[in-house]
Amino acid sequence: MRAVDIILKKRHGKELTKEEIDTFIKGYTNGDIPDYQVSAFLMAVYFKGMTKEETAHLTNAMVKSGDEIDLSKIEGIKVDKHSTGGVGDKTSLIIAPLVASVGVPVAKMSGRGLGHTGGTVDKLESIEGFQVELTTQQFIENVNRHKIAVVGQSGNLTPADKKLYALRDVTGTVDSIPLIASSIMSKKIASGSNAIVLDVKFGSGAFMKTLEDAKALASAMVGIGNELGRQTVAIITDMDQPLGHEIGNANEVQEAIAVLSGKGDKDLTEVCLTLAGNMAVLGGAYSDFDEAKRELQKILESGKAVEKMREFVESQGGNGNQITNPETLPQAKYHMEIKSDEEGNVQTIDAESVGIAAMLLGAGRKTKEDNIDYAVGITLKKKVGDIVAKGETLAVFHANFEDIGEAEKTLKNAYTFTNQSVEAPKLIHDIIK
Amino acid sequence: MRAVDIILKKRHGKELTKEEIDTFIKGYTNGDIPDYQVSAFLMAVYFKGMTKEETAHLTNAMVKSGDEIDLSKIEGIKVDKHSTGGVGDKTSLIIAPLVASVGVPVAKMSGRGLGHTGGTVDKLESIEGFQVELTTQQFIENVNRHKIAVVGQSGNLTPADKKLYALRDVTGTVDSIPLIASSIMSKKIASGSNAIVLDVKFGSGAFMKTLEDAKALASAMVGIGNELGRQTVAIITDMDQPLGHEIGNANEVQEAIAVLSGKGDKDLTEVCLTLAGNMAVLGGAYSDFDEAKRELQKILESGKAVEKMREFVESQGGNGNQITNPETLPQAKYHMEIKSDEEGNVQTIDAESVGIAAMLLGAGRKTKEDNIDYAVGITLKKKVGDIVAKGETLAVFHANFEDIGEAEKTLKNAYTFTNQSVEAPKLIHDIIK
Repeated sequence: MRAVDIILKKRHGKELTKEEIDTFIKGYTNGDIPDYQVSAFLMAVYFKGMTKEETAHLTNAMVKSGDEIDLSKIEGIKVDKHSTGGVGDKTSLIIAPLVASVGVPVAKMSGRGLGHTGGTVDKLESIEGFQVELTTQQFIENVNRHKIAVVGQSGNLTPADKKLYALRDVTGTVDSIPLIASSIMSKKIASGSNAIVLDVKFGSGAFMKTLEDAKALASAMVGIGNELGRQTVAIITDMDQPLGHEIGNANEVQEAIAVLSGKGDKDLTEVCLTLAGNMAVLGGAYSDFDEAKRELQKILESGKAVEKMREFVESQGGNGNQITNPETLPQAKYHMEIKSDEEGNVQTIDAESVGIAAMLLGAGRKTKEDNIDYAVGITLKKKVGDIVAKGETLAVFHANFEDIGEAEKTLKNAYTFTNQSVEAPKLIHDIIK
Repeated sequence: MRAVDIILKKRHGKELTKEEIDTFIKGYTNGDIPDYQVSAFLMAVYFKGMTKEETAHLTNAMVKSGDEIDLSKIEGIKVDKHSTGGVGDKTSLIIAPLVASVGVPVAKMSGRGLGHTGGTVDKLESIEGFQVELTTQQFIENVNRHKIAVVGQSGNLTPADKKLYALRDVTGTVDSIPLIASSIMSKKIASGSNAIVLDVKFGSGAFMKTLEDAKALASAMVGIGNELGRQTVAIITDMDQPLGHEIGNANEVQEAIAVLSGKGDKDLTEVCLTLAGNMAVLGGAYSDFDEAKRELQKILESGKAVEKMREFVESQGGNGNQITNPETLPQAKYHMEIKSDEEGNVQTIDAESVGIAAMLLGAGRKTKEDNIDYAVGITLKKKVGDIVAKGETLAVFHANFEDIGEAEKTLKNAYTFTNQSVEAPKLIHDIIK
């Protein structure tokens, strides 16, 4: 079977067999099939799509291209969670201890961030002493003992996906649903969990700009999960403005602690309860979602969830006092109020621009080599639907330098106003199983 | 301007500017843009097409990627001819001396063949002593003196096309009209002629399988010619069965001599007069096509055309006696009659299969390194519409070995029969200016 025949078959819109997809991905991974054939193939996939079966075969081929994490020594149903990413998305920091506190094992591999703020691993490292490098044995022991552990990605997971992702980036083939779906799902499946909850975001601050695209991606990923024997649920959530009020690293940990203590932002809490509720059901802790959500809400209010967070932080060498006293987390030198030049009802807040403003303050990385300043970030004081007077504070910048001109301009430009009243946007749009 | 942005623009179906296309092709030629970006681009072109202007810009960029032949020292309007290729296509051997004999300069660069039979250069080399390697000065002098010269391709013509062609072959992006059209036209334009007549073939033995596709390709090529200031005419001709009766090299020269002597196959003569008539009009020898065709017919009958062929052959070191006495051209050792196992009216003759049978006898090259046996080939005794009795001769094989089993089987399978009467196919379907 020649690579060019597989390209042509896809170009003609015909369905590829498992054997053809395996041959192609194996050939690419070991270097027998060159980049230039694969990029032509990817462009043909962009135009002709892939069936549910093809997408699952592609995912499986990428999983088999490298190591697979064996979590079989962890008791219980391991449920993983993935977010397609957004600005101010600290849900992992909340959900992981919340779900663990009802006995569902959370064995999480997380990445460092390249973007507006750090990734989950970076955010956790803003806690003094927190250690994300665990041996496999430590990782498994921690999950069995505490029901929770978070480690940085290690091992040779899905090398085919890494190669494909780099190639897609430079060949104009990033935004293809089957390619995005298989890329995300291959990493989740190689990470070894039994079930997966996906937070698929859409809006100005998300990769998927429309509800329709988000639903299509969610369906593709749920389809892959089901084809490959992992129960998968996707929640479609709004990312038309940043999630919650904090954007940064230490300040996001602080906001997470507030939610875990039952005192957090209502919308952020709602998103987290929806995600955690679905995880808890998949993990076998409850038989139905409504019950799960109700019980998890009680756990937040009881203090058990924040207690689990402290236990988790300490189990990985972190300073638990910072969870109980979050004001001891890294603090920036300057706190500057950004005042509104306009008045009216906040109509939109472009999440991406807020993210860029946070990165300008030092909260994120532009390149892999950049350092993150854990202490800096943005607190949004006004969100969509809020009424703003001229001169009122829109946001507070936490910074370690005074020259915030560009970040301030970017933040202000993120806001639009209207004199009509505006309803706060609905956060949860759909659940796809 | 990043290559990926050009890919994305094309992927979105937007029209590229001259500058964008120039940047892309220049970058590819000098190695700044890698194969993997170009193949993704080609696949996007396959799906989204190119406008007439884009196709002309692409052609021009390929012309500018290498040398351009300067024919300005040749007097008169230089008219080139190109055929998209088919089985038994010896029209160049006929048209070149025919057009030269009415004073239109024919300065032709031709290739060696890779396929069923040799190319024009190979066919000419079956004549004893014929020399296709001329210096540029000799080439120009020959055309000025004899109005005709044929040389092998030399110099660094359209290196971008060579790179693109090789890449298309392995990435499933060969059959895209703008890519085919720009590839052909870039070579013709770099070869320096002022006007171009195209013979676009369709049918089982041609690259274009349908009349519709052939028309689309012809329109694209005529569009390029006009955009780039070369008067271009395309003739759409049938290649559903081999052209004429001879398939090979020396035997095709022999058939060409018959036509040049006014005694050739009627259909082949008709195609040649149509092509040559258009060339003669473009070259300024006649003011309208009907007159040109009438006069050229007379020239065939007068003996002047075959005389010009002899003059041309001798001007390039060939043995002119072989033109006057074609039976002295290379002859095979064996001549085997292939008899029909069936009876009826010939309904179709798959041209490609006949070509393969000729190649099996040694008339063509499978790889660049293969040698051609000039003496071997096939004479078709029965063509579409002919009545055949069981045991009657379908074709004669000229071979230098006796083991012709596979070639015979291939030839016989090329024929289909019916008991209904069949009309001989129309050869000339359209003329596109």
